[in-house]
Amino acid sequence: MMKIDILTLFPEMFQGPLNESIIGKAQSNGIVDFDLINFRDFSENKHHQVDDTTYGGGAGMLLMPQPIFDAMDYVTQKSAGDRGHVILLDPAGKRFSQQDAVNLSHQQHLIFICGHYEGYDERIKTLVDEEYSIGDYVLTGGELGAMVMLDAVIRLLPGVLGNDESSVDESFTNGLLEYPQYTRPANFRGMQVPEVLTNGNHQLIDEWRQKESLRKTYQRRPDLLKKISLSAHQQKLLKDIKRNYNNEPNE
Amino acid sequence: MMKIDILTLFPEMFQGPLNESIIGKAQSNGIVDFDLINFRDFSENKHHQVDDTTYGGGAGMLLMPQPIFDAMDYVTQKSAGDRGHVILLDPAGKRFSQQDAVNLSHQQHLIFICGHYEGYDERIKTLVDEEYSIGDYVLTGGELGAMVMLDAVIRLLPGVLGNDESSVDESFTNGLLEYPQYTRPANFRGMQVPEVLTNGNHQLIDEWRQKESLRKTYQRRPDLLKKISLSAHQQKLLKDIKRNYNNEPNE
Repeated sequence: MMKIDILTLFPEMFQGPLNESIIGKAQSNGIVDFDLINFRDFSENKHHQVDDTTYGGGAGMLLMPQPIFDAMDYVTQKSAGDRGHVILLDPAGKRFSQQDAVNLSHQQHLIFICGHYEGYDERIKTLVDEEYSIGDYVLTGGELGAMVMLDAVIRLLPGVLGNDESSVDESFTNGLLEYPQYTRPANFRGMQVPEVLTNGNHQLIDEWRQKESLRKTYQRRPDLLKKISLSAHQQKLLKDIKRNYNNEPNE
Repeated sequence: MMKIDILTLFPEMFQGPLNESIIGKAQSNGIVDFDLINFRDFSENKHHQVDDTTYGGGAGMLLMPQPIFDAMDYVTQKSAGDRGHVILLDPAGKRFSQQDAVNLSHQQHLIFICGHYEGYDERIKTLVDEEYSIGDYVLTGGELGAMVMLDAVIRLLPGVLGNDESSVDESFTNGLLEYPQYTRPANFRGMQVPEVLTNGNHQLIDEWRQKESLRKTYQRRPDLLKKISLSAHQQKLLKDIKRNYNNEPNE
C-alpha cells in the first residue's frame, strides 16, 4: 500500500478528486491510503497565522517555516520515523513528466506540500526531496498540482486500471500523438468513419494509423519527433506528409 | 459574468475544487457561473452507455458522438443559441500555457468537454474550438485538466484576487524563476535569513534578487533564458554565475 500525506490549507478541495473515479477506487481497494493534514493546525501563532511578510520587501506574503516543519515532524512521528519522499509544488520546480510519474509510482510513501496564493520561505525547501511544477502557468495553489500528480501516479499502480481503461497510454508510450479513432455509428449526422477502418484489412488499417499518427505529431508537436528514432518506413511516410503539407507535389 | 459549462461523467469530482478557495469565492461573488453537465444523461442507449469499441480494432473503448453532441445541443439551447468557446481536454492537444490562460480570460462563455479513461470519436472534435493538454503526462480523465485551466483563468478575472494573493505572478511575468524568499523568524532551527535581506539596503537587495533569480533559472530552466532578452547588467550577472557554476575562476 502506498501511503500519501498531503499538507494543505484547503483539505476540502481534495474531497471530490480523491473520492471519485480511480483514486476513490484505489483507496477503497486498499492500494493507497491518504491523510490530509491542514498545517494551519500546527501554527504556534495565537491567530493560527501561517504566513508573514517578506524580508527585504515585496508585495506578497510567504508561508512561514514553523507550521510546515511541525506538520512534517508530525508526519514522521506517525510513520514511526519514516520520512517518506517529500514533494513541494512550486512554479519554479522541475516540470512534471510521465517519466516522473513512473518513478514516483515505485515510492512507498509520498508527502506533498501545497502552498496557496503565496511563496514559501526558502528554508522550507530543506525538507523537500523534489520540487515540481505541472506546467508553465500560474495556479492559486499547489493543491491541483498535487491532485494531477497523484492521478498520474496512482493510475500506474498495479491493480488500479482495468484493461479497458489503459488504452490512452498509447498517446505517450510510442512517443507520437495518437491517430484519429472512431466508434459507432459509421455515419453520424452525415459524418462518415473513414472507409479504410471499416473494411477489415488490418495491414491497410495499420498503415493508415501510422501515417495519421505521424501527421498529427508533425502538425501539432514537431518537438516530439526529435525525441524518437523513426523506422525507415516511418521516415518515408513522414516525407510524404511533409511534401503534402508543404504543397510541393513535384519535389 | 463568465459562464462555464463542463461536460463530464464525474461531476462530483469538481465539488471540492470549484467550491473552495478563489473559485468558490468567484462563484459566490457572481464573477463566474458554473454548470456541470453529465453527458451520460443524454445517452440514447437504454443502458446509458456512452462508449463503444473502436473501428479497425484496438483494446480501448471510445466516447460515442451521440451523447456529447446532444449535451452540446442542450448547452447551446439553454444559452439562447450562444455556442460559447468549446475546449476539449486531450493528451494530443496544444500544451496549455499562461498566455492561453490570459486569452481565455477574455471569453464570455467557456465549455469544457472532459473524456475519462478513453479516447474520443474523432467526430466529436468538429464541435471543438481548441484542444488542450495541461502537460506531457497521462491522466485518467480531462476533469483535472479542466480544473487546472479554470483555476489559471479565473484567478485572472477582475475582482478575483486581492493584492496579497497576486504576488506569485512574478514567477512568470518577467520570464525568470523567482529568487529565494524569507519571512520571520530570522533564525529558524539554526537556519539564518541571508544578511543582505535584513540590512535594509534596497540597492543591494535588488542586486541579490536579480542574481539569484538568474542563477535559479540558469540551473533549473535554461530554456527560459533563451526566450527573453537580458539587459547588459543581467548578462554580466549571468556570466559571473556561469563562471562560478562551471568552477572556472580564471577565465
